[in-house]
Amino acid sequence: MEERGLDGILALGDSTSNNPELLYLVGCSIPRGGIYVKRRGQDPILVVSETDLGSARSSRVKNVKSFGEVGYYRLLERDVKRAYINLITQLVADAGLEGKIALYGRNEPNVILQVSSALKQRGFTVVGEDSPTLLEEVMMTKDEREVEAIKRVGEVACKIAKDVIEHLASCRVGDRLIYKEELRVGHIKRLVRVLLAENNLKPIDEMIFAPAPRSSDPHYTGLDSEPIKVGQPIVFDLFPQGSEGYCFDLTRTISIGSPTLEFKEMFGTVLEAQLTVLERLRSGMLAKEAMETACEVFEKKGYDTPRTNPRLTRGFTHSLGHGIGLTIGERPYLSLYSQDRIVDRQVFTVEPGLYDARLGGVRLEDVVVMEGGVAKNLTDLEKVLVY
Amino acid sequence: MEERGLDGILALGDSTSNNPELLYLVGCSIPRGGIYVKRRGQDPILVVSETDLGSARSSRVKNVKSFGEVGYYRLLERDVKRAYINLITQLVADAGLEGKIALYGRNEPNVILQVSSALKQRGFTVVGEDSPTLLEEVMMTKDEREVEAIKRVGEVACKIAKDVIEHLASCRVGDRLIYKEELRVGHIKRLVRVLLAENNLKPIDEMIFAPAPRSSDPHYTGLDSEPIKVGQPIVFDLFPQGSEGYCFDLTRTISIGSPTLEFKEMFGTVLEAQLTVLERLRSGMLAKEAMETACEVFEKKGYDTPRTNPRLTRGFTHSLGHGIGLTIGERPYLSLYSQDRIVDRQVFTVEPGLYDARLGGVRLEDVVVMEGGVAKNLTDLEKVLVY
Repeated sequence: MEERGLDGILALGDSTSNNPELLYLVGCSIPRGGIYVKRRGQDPILVVSETDLGSARSSRVKNVKSFGEVGYYRLLERDVKRAYINLITQLVADAGLEGKIALYGRNEPNVILQVSSALKQRGFTVVGEDSPTLLEEVMMTKDEREVEAIKRVGEVACKIAKDVIEHLASCRVGDRLIYKEELRVGHIKRLVRVLLAENNLKPIDEMIFAPAPRSSDPHYTGLDSEPIKVGQPIVFDLFPQGSEGYCFDLTRTISIGSPTLEFKEMFGTVLEAQLTVLERLRSGMLAKEAMETACEVFEKKGYDTPRTNPRLTRGFTHSLGHGIGLTIGERPYLSLYSQDRIVDRQVFTVEPGLYDARLGGVRLEDVVVMEGGVAKNLTDLEKVLVY
Repeated sequence: MEERGLDGILALGDSTSNNPELLYLVGCSIPRGGIYVKRRGQDPILVVSETDLGSARSSRVKNVKSFGEVGYYRLLERDVKRAYINLITQLVADAGLEGKIALYGRNEPNVILQVSSALKQRGFTVVGEDSPTLLEEVMMTKDEREVEAIKRVGEVACKIAKDVIEHLASCRVGDRLIYKEELRVGHIKRLVRVLLAENNLKPIDEMIFAPAPRSSDPHYTGLDSEPIKVGQPIVFDLFPQGSEGYCFDLTRTISIGSPTLEFKEMFGTVLEAQLTVLERLRSGMLAKEAMETACEVFEKKGYDTPRTNPRLTRGFTHSLGHGIGLTIGERPYLSLYSQDRIVDRQVFTVEPGLYDARLGGVRLEDVVVMEGGVAKNLTDLEKVLVY
């Protein structure tokens, strides 16, 4: 805070469940959210609903108070419409904040604009930080506890992906894939969901299980009714969240039975790009240098990349990776325009891909943690195209 | 918009998956989010990543463009740090917005403050609306498609709850509950998660399966290792989300084998409060009147309520209910300080409860839709304490 001239921070949210920043600051799930105030050099205070006092006991904030204890109901009686805003300005004043205040926690803009304007009226200075904010900066590297939480989710996710691929391969009967009837995407997705549930992992969004050629759209998720055929490559992208909020993200491209030679070559190129990047990743380098490395490999083989054409639809059509933590979309960003620097204790994906409307897509995605200056792979799952 | 003097709205977000407001406006999942701009009386425009163009095709917005198409990469080349802000002001200007603009979509405050300040610098007026905002107002009532989506989730959720209760009852062996070994909370939670997964429902947060007496904390979720005993009442609160984003929320209090007479009386009082409210709900009334009705029933029986003591820990310790839609915490709020009015096409919970540190908790929660002036119950699940 000192470096940025901040005197304190204020974080808000109506729940931690869709608010990774608030979740990070309080360190446990608080279903109805709350108000977090911290002055530089002092312990923070967290105010939650009476109903959530039980949950908040496991928070990393020691000083937890209920809305009643800080006088919220009196404020409600005086002025219902302004009670929340009045409570916040009161808490900020009580905490002794004086100089610049940074606001955190995902909220609807009207809340942010009203809180900010009320604080300004009371003489506080509210800064709209440039990104990366102080909190983004802190959240970008993970402490041991966080890395362990990500590893735990990763181990289970890899095991599930392995089991699913084995199951898929076991469905082969001659030149067909059969499970009771003809095997369809919905059958595999259901299996994945059940395995996640059995292991207390939550799907963050609809998983990707996309057979070629429609897998040429990197975010095509696959339709339940789609049949899967022998020799048809599939992009399988799994991104679950564990009970503590930490996530994992992994992608394999597989085919039960051999796909075309052309496709195999595409797979080989993506694998080469990934291995090259994994080997060359070093703490201290710019994240965009990793992206440049991947682009080089692809361009040498004649593929378009965001460097040669930012609006391409064939070739390497997206960025190389992103941070992993309480979200699956955070810093560092391994993209051409990223200004992030790779440093130890960052956890991020390395996920080059190639897409072709005729052949489909290939993507290989691992999660790594930077340790001792190099990338340590957390993704214990083989990279084999043909099963 | 006209009524509120708004010339247009701007909605932002880095994903629809934790941004119900953006999800509502675009009408489909967009993993990397986007920028939505609408001028009053005109069709909106939605700008998304190249990668998400496929997903955005199923959006309710007809005019979808990629970041490349609106010149984002040129802006990035010119000024990486300001490119996103510059793109937004450019899109707002291109859409012809002139007067007051409202901002929507959950974001980190620094994004909101920077966007707002950049728009003000360019001469736009950004309003920090009082709650309910225009969007909250619109989202508070559901159209037929939304009610149907909620109903679908509700039907499956009720079926799952029914199956789980039946399974629980089937574990009774004399005066013990046995499933392979002694039955524990974790076994039931795992079953619920698997049933949700099989039916493509997602748990929004850790479910509540809380045996007495710790169920006296309304948000105590139950520990996996806790054994469940014959005659021990359990609060079972399930809040899943369907693939379209719509949610459901239901609670039953059950006991395998008879609990104490005192507990049964508490159950009877909660049931009476719920049935009284359900019968008296009318479109046109204030939401807080429903809360008052529940309080009356409880107070007559000698229990404390938020009216008699806002910081109570025994009695009816929370509010009566909340809206259900793309979230499980939205308007209308059925609480003492709510200013919401009940109107047709609102969908909300009615969930009175009583809590006692010695006996545990009782909560019964249904979801209703207001139709033709009265409450239609969407929760097809019996209210029986003893199985």
